[in-house]
Amino acid sequence: MSDELKKGLRGILAAESKMSEIDGDAGKLIYRGYDIEQLADSASYEEVLYLFWEGQLPNREELDAFTDSMTSERGIQEETIKTLRSLARQGETPMAALRSGVSTLSASEPEVDADPEDPDATRRKGRRITAKIPTVLANYDRLRRGDDLIEPRADLSHAGNFLYMLTGQEPSDVAEETMDMALILHTDHGLNASTFTAMIIGSTLADVYAAVTGGVGALSGALHGGANQDVMAALMELDGSDMDPVEWVRDKEESGERVPGWGHGVYNVKDPRAKILQSKLEELSEEDGDTKWLDYTTSIETYLTEEQRLPEKGIAPNVDFYSGSVYKKLGIPVDMYTPIFAMSRVGGWLGHIFEYTADNKLIRPRGRYVGPHNQEFVPVDQR
Amino acid sequence: MSDELKKGLRGILAAESKMSEIDGDAGKLIYRGYDIEQLADSASYEEVLYLFWEGQLPNREELDAFTDSMTSERGIQEETIKTLRSLARQGETPMAALRSGVSTLSASEPEVDADPEDPDATRRKGRRITAKIPTVLANYDRLRRGDDLIEPRADLSHAGNFLYMLTGQEPSDVAEETMDMALILHTDHGLNASTFTAMIIGSTLADVYAAVTGGVGALSGALHGGANQDVMAALMELDGSDMDPVEWVRDKEESGERVPGWGHGVYNVKDPRAKILQSKLEELSEEDGDTKWLDYTTSIETYLTEEQRLPEKGIAPNVDFYSGSVYKKLGIPVDMYTPIFAMSRVGGWLGHIFEYTADNKLIRPRGRYVGPHNQEFVPVDQR
Repeated sequence: MSDELKKGLRGILAAESKMSEIDGDAGKLIYRGYDIEQLADSASYEEVLYLFWEGQLPNREELDAFTDSMTSERGIQEETIKTLRSLARQGETPMAALRSGVSTLSASEPEVDADPEDPDATRRKGRRITAKIPTVLANYDRLRRGDDLIEPRADLSHAGNFLYMLTGQEPSDVAEETMDMALILHTDHGLNASTFTAMIIGSTLADVYAAVTGGVGALSGALHGGANQDVMAALMELDGSDMDPVEWVRDKEESGERVPGWGHGVYNVKDPRAKILQSKLEELSEEDGDTKWLDYTTSIETYLTEEQRLPEKGIAPNVDFYSGSVYKKLGIPVDMYTPIFAMSRVGGWLGHIFEYTADNKLIRPRGRYVGPHNQEFVPVDQR
Repeated sequence: MSDELKKGLRGILAAESKMSEIDGDAGKLIYRGYDIEQLADSASYEEVLYLFWEGQLPNREELDAFTDSMTSERGIQEETIKTLRSLARQGETPMAALRSGVSTLSASEPEVDADPEDPDATRRKGRRITAKIPTVLANYDRLRRGDDLIEPRADLSHAGNFLYMLTGQEPSDVAEETMDMALILHTDHGLNASTFTAMIIGSTLADVYAAVTGGVGALSGALHGGANQDVMAALMELDGSDMDPVEWVRDKEESGERVPGWGHGVYNVKDPRAKILQSKLEELSEEDGDTKWLDYTTSIETYLTEEQRLPEKGIAPNVDFYSGSVYKKLGIPVDMYTPIFAMSRVGGWLGHIFEYTADNKLIRPRGRYVGPHNQEFVPVDQR
């Protein structure tokens, strides 16, 4: 037992994991030994979920069975839709609506009484949550817009069906691929704050609905997932100004503001996820002939790289720098970006819960009391 | 950076705190320098909340203003009641209903757009959540019983009003005092799993609604607050058998089962909270002349102490050993015991969030990757 304060738990090794490996200096993100670029290019989000939850990539038969088990769970109960409708009436943010929506899903869980230490039941519950999150989100966005709800379609992929339910239109191949890739890229990233939150809740043997609800809550924070909307907000500000991108960045710098989407707590070079999303942004821009957001990000990156030499100082574009423009081109409202992050990351939260609780130990650190001692109680009217 | 795995973070000093101090060997629990026994005897839960949130006990004027600000926030919106009604129709557990109920409360938060780093706004939000939790719980219990809802009354204390809304009857003085004491005894207890969960979520600068929702989730686990219903379930099993208490315990021991409510991760002697609740159980039993649950617990404690000498082995009655019988006598259904724990502990969660975020650092430990390396991706149809 050390008496050294480990504020923020930086550097403290809280778990061993076979989920993901990050090499911040080389700019590498590895999922169970596979390079994220390979998976993003060649696998589907469903395959990546299987990889994380079952430990290896599925063969065709395993993948088909897994995919079927997910698609059959996409529908959500009318009771949860009522809650979403009520939240929409109150103007709740999509991220808080997702938190409440996921929380209420446990009420319709068929295996609600399963032993929390039964790994198979916990996996089935986790699969149901993951399958339903896109439906919760797409429904919520349509409810607040006053649009009719769209039933999930079983013949579309997890990513494609989400875009279909959200927009009402079957996505193009590039759009579906891009969404699928974005989900893969955000699935896991070591013991980040939301993953660790989900693990702690799981370590109490609470239900996975409780753990995922907690993960959504942690991801909503501005120091965590909540920041992924800032880049797009900034680019939209630039778009509304009459400045060119470099002028706009210089203006930011002069007033001491950081350009959002640059720098990362873990990567010292360009985030591997940013590179992949950048190339998808190029494809999407080519497809529809609108290169505005691509031009903005490219101009900013060129300026900060060549003139300000930020990457040489260890400050490089992170995943958020490109995800916003990509989502914008997919027709997704800006305040849905963090919920989409959750829609992907739930796969990582669940994988870490399955892994940690297989050899569980309640997570409970120590605090040091530094307050007063031996206080004499004086009744309120004599104070 | 140490390479030693700290599973469960045992012994890791994650924060300094002026909230509570536990002396497991002496059986002492201290809130900001005040002995828990003094506070339980002489203060109200509202005073203890003020103590934790503001740093010192209030004078009369401060307490009155604080109490008024709490009582005026007890009502919950019809929209949240609709969600509770829907959960009740689905037979949701009260603890999961509390999690969903608290989560949906953010939709009616008047300061929803306040800066999460504004400590005053965060305190006001925390006060609203704390004031509304008894209403959420009492309403939920009445909804699932099919009873009419009872509006909160501003002339009753936090504890007394809860019992009134739950049972429809103004509680006796002893009942109100006992409930108030139970709330005080459960308010804080160092960096337990639910408190730490709330702190992590708070450290991302997520909204306090997210943090409290996460805390409720963590507390629901069987290795944490979820266990406080086990003692009463066991005593009710004893009551339904034709065995006497000692015979029943011997029977448990022979079949290798633990008697719930004995032993604690932190206390090696009798939990100070157990002593206080035991004396209230005596008072309540005297008041209504029904000593059944008191007799059971007393017989079991005498047997385990005198014949099995468990306390000498460091295994002594914990707070749960007496809380169940006390709640039973207050007319509270067994599956509401953990939600009541949450109704009290929310004061501790919030106090730790206020304290930690005043000098915030995102909580993010490290994981060690122990999975495979350099996996070669093979397309699904070639696997």
